[in-house]
Amino acid sequence: MTSTLTDPAALPGWTTDPAARAAARLDRSGFDPGSDPDAVVVAGSVDEVAAVLAHATATGTPVVVRGAGSGLSGGAVAGAGSIVLDLSGLDRIVEISPADEYAVVEAGVITADLDAAAAAHGLRYAPDPASLAISTIGGNIATNAGGLRCAKYGVTRDSVLGLDVVLADGRRISTGRRTVKGVAGYDLTGLFVGSEGTLGVVVGATLRLRPAPVATATLAAWFDGIGAAAAAAAAITAARLQPSVAELLDTACLTAIAEAGGPAPRGGAFLLVQTDGFGADAEIDAVRAVVEPLAGPGSVEVAADPAGAEALLATRRAGLPALERLGRVLVEDVAVPRSRLAEAVGAIAAISDRTGIRIATMAHAGDGNLHPILVLEPGRELDEQVWACAGEVFTTALRLGGTLTGEHGVGLLKRRWLRDELGDDVVDLQQQLRAVFDPRGVLNPGKAI
Amino acid sequence: MTSTLTDPAALPGWTTDPAARAAARLDRSGFDPGSDPDAVVVAGSVDEVAAVLAHATATGTPVVVRGAGSGLSGGAVAGAGSIVLDLSGLDRIVEISPADEYAVVEAGVITADLDAAAAAHGLRYAPDPASLAISTIGGNIATNAGGLRCAKYGVTRDSVLGLDVVLADGRRISTGRRTVKGVAGYDLTGLFVGSEGTLGVVVGATLRLRPAPVATATLAAWFDGIGAAAAAAAAITAARLQPSVAELLDTACLTAIAEAGGPAPRGGAFLLVQTDGFGADAEIDAVRAVVEPLAGPGSVEVAADPAGAEALLATRRAGLPALERLGRVLVEDVAVPRSRLAEAVGAIAAISDRTGIRIATMAHAGDGNLHPILVLEPGRELDEQVWACAGEVFTTALRLGGTLTGEHGVGLLKRRWLRDELGDDVVDLQQQLRAVFDPRGVLNPGKAI
Ligand SMILES: Cc1cc2nc3c(=O)[nH]c(=O)nc-3n(C[C@H](O)[C@H](O)[C@H](O)COP(=O)(O)OP(=O)(O)OC[C@H]3O[C@@H](n4cnc5c(N)ncnc54)[C@H](O)[C@@H]3O)c2cc1C
Ligand SMILES: Cc1cc2nc3c(=O)[nH]c(=O)nc-3n(C[C@H](O)[C@H](O)[C@H](O)COP(=O)(O)OP(=O)(O)OC[C@H]3O[C@@H](n4cnc5c(N)ncnc54)[C@H](O)[C@@H]3O)c2cc1C
Repeated sequence: MTSTLTDPAALPGWTTDPAARAAARLDRSGFDPGSDPDAVVVAGSVDEVAAVLAHATATGTPVVVRGAGSGLSGGAVAGAGSIVLDLSGLDRIVEISPADEYAVVEAGVITADLDAAAAAHGLRYAPDPASLAISTIGGNIATNAGGLRCAKYGVTRDSVLGLDVVLADGRRISTGRRTVKGVAGYDLTGLFVGSEGTLGVVVGATLRLRPAPVATATLAAWFDGIGAAAAAAAAITAARLQPSVAELLDTACLTAIAEAGGPAPRGGAFLLVQTDGFGADAEIDAVRAVVEPLAGPGSVEVAADPAGAEALLATRRAGLPALERLGRVLVEDVAVPRSRLAEAVGAIAAISDRTGIRIATMAHAGDGNLHPILVLEPGRELDEQVWACAGEVFTTALRLGGTLTGEHGVGLLKRRWLRDELGDDVVDLQQQLRAVFDPRGVLNPGKAI
Repeated sequence: MTSTLTDPAALPGWTTDPAARAAARLDRSGFDPGSDPDAVVVAGSVDEVAAVLAHATATGTPVVVRGAGSGLSGGAVAGAGSIVLDLSGLDRIVEISPADEYAVVEAGVITADLDAAAAAHGLRYAPDPASLAISTIGGNIATNAGGLRCAKYGVTRDSVLGLDVVLADGRRISTGRRTVKGVAGYDLTGLFVGSEGTLGVVVGATLRLRPAPVATATLAAWFDGIGAAAAAAAAITAARLQPSVAELLDTACLTAIAEAGGPAPRGGAFLLVQTDGFGADAEIDAVRAVVEPLAGPGSVEVAADPAGAEALLATRRAGLPALERLGRVLVEDVAVPRSRLAEAVGAIAAISDRTGIRIATMAHAGDGNLHPILVLEPGRELDEQVWACAGEVFTTALRLGGTLTGEHGVGLLKRRWLRDELGDDVVDLQQQLRAVFDPRGVLNPGKAI
């Protein structure tokens, strides 16, 4: 279906109000484009999305899609010359199928709202970015967001069955299916996931829901230092256990939590593990058996009930807020093979020492995804030295066989390192793919690839 | 890296021997192209693959990649004018990393060999097509193969972390990564999975391995008919249980097994369920509790040990061989939302009655994937009436909100129905993507999309 050309300025959701434009300029990356976008359109329907895109392609106007703007890589940042297409108003949960364990939603649905709606049927939406209370499903899909539970349940990609997309020229397509399996044609669904608003605008999605586990068990352990904690994470893997959550905090993190008035550290590193399902208790016992010898005596706690589990989770949850109280933060996001975790945390601590920039690292230990958080002294901007320090973190990840970004996306901030990771041939191919979908280059130009 | 142009006829693995050409003409689909390919190259190295492809692009010669030729959709079928590129010789397991739970393999590795090598480390390669003793990893990737365990562990896509690919012009690229997570650039890995030899030649893969479960529990149940069996499968889902295997056989299947001298049917439909992990026994008890009221009295058995489990699995395993003894078979492969399973099996039985072609259906009930197996009387060919009957099966799946192919691929046989499922815009986009990778159209022309 081809959309008719409507001037987006005629749409009810169109505004050039300075406050609205200023509010749509930044995301949570800390990157400032230096100017406001020309206009914001809060889409009220898929037809309106199509009209905006048809107009953009016809006139060559850059369009920046925006979900909640909670992204950490600058993907939703928009400056002069561009229109922001805000999808937060497309927030209907269209269908939940308990029999087929899927949900059909519009792109602006808040992640946590979907999970809550699924819970009413004994189901859940597994991908749980820490931003789930504010982020949109469309943004999660566009960045292939991860979360704590992806150690066992995979990233957003693993929960997307099909998509409704408006292409750059305003045409609408549907990809994928409602069945769990299917191999008819190329996997366009997977191509749109993680494409950061550059291949098309996701307006709706069919998402896989999973049974909420009958039981969950939680263990927390404190260690002398990161070496022992990483060894414990490795021992869990070596014992062929499959935690649903495995989170690690380093010394700098624990210190910051204490400085911010949170729980005093009981060691130099902290590991939080959850297991779930019918065997949750038996599996947490097996986790305990391999972790205990590596933690100090009395340094392992297993929660017997949900309240106890919450208490153990509190330390993990306190991490980012504590760091944010100390100064402006730059939340990084690299991944390495799990066996290189200790090495990566150590190398990052050394970068911190060398540059004098405070870096605290939290890691999804279950999948080798590290969030080194650069904390700037009050008043300091994201200057070139800070970016150079972040660059050292990226090249460390690549040197250890890892990637620039585990779950936040490339956005604006990591483009200069992308060829180092992917190689010229792959980046060139990706640019040719992009041109197939968006020949005039109006979708989020300058971002992602 | 661009390959130098070598005439493939100069390669050690090149042959125009009639027996070799005849052996490379067919796969297991039953489709005959009517002539032998011009030549076969058994590749001895990635360099040789690159040389063949560079030559193919330079000369416009069609290349059909072949793994084991076990495919059921005609993807590896090759006739006059084409060269078959046989990868079965690239069969090295390059690395197994127990610490990072991945394997690096060449494309010609036999699926079961990888699984066995992983087992030595307490790991397994989860995707288990019934052809795993003969199929290659490259073929599994190219078709996005499924298997019994994908009810819980997903299809081949869910176990592929990265790929080494030779492009149509002989250039080599690597996609993906060794880390569990990563979102740098578009998901080319996912695009190659399921692309049936049309976007590039997969020469190597980094595959995710998973912990072998500490325990497995097996239940078998017999029902009056397919309605009750499908209701039992639905009840398992509604109870939010997560079997690792859920297989269903219909009356026609059970009858054929008995005719072939196998176990006598104890009902009109059969359901086999496995659970695994630390809670396997508790979960199978929960399965039993929901299944028992729907099966006849005394019609549910739970195996206490591996030997007992094997005995229960025997009925499922006997299905295809029994049907093959009755006549030539055409193994179909459609998927529907799980809640439409009974309806689909019923509609297929009605097609069988109407056309007089015997159809027995086995289904992966856990994911709504049905294999309706058309059994031809001795001497009958795959004539137009047979294809018309298969066509009715496909349109039934589409009508029920499903797909033409759950796991075998489109190949040659399903192309005429593809636009009905995907729509013109999507097929056109896919053809443009194909042209980015293979501008001269030498990779498996006439197949897949
Ligand atoms: C406190 C905090 C914690 C976080 N924790 C996590 C975490 O655990 N895991 C994680 O992965 N991320 C995390 N994030 C990052 C962020 O929340 C995620 O990237 C999230 O997926 C972004 O969703 P959004 O709706 O805010 O998207 P936005 O920030 O608005 O957009 C992100 C990108 O997606 C594009 N986009 C948005 N919607 C669409 C659409 N419908 N169609 C096409 N393109 C679109 C935008 O153009 C942009 O490129 C965190 C962020 C914060 C602030
Ligand atoms: C008895 C039996 C049971 C089966 N059970 C299942 C099942 O449970 N689940 C299931 O999914 N399938 C099943 N199949 C179908 C088949 O085994 C699978 O499709 C398998 O993945 C094909 O692997 P292969 O190596 O034989 O590939 P081939 O048949 O040689 O090729 C299949 C397709 O992949 C392409 N290809 C092969 N290798 C490469 C490569 N390295 N790079 C690029 N393209 C390549 C070919 O060109 C062709 O298009 C079964 C088949 C049989 C005969």
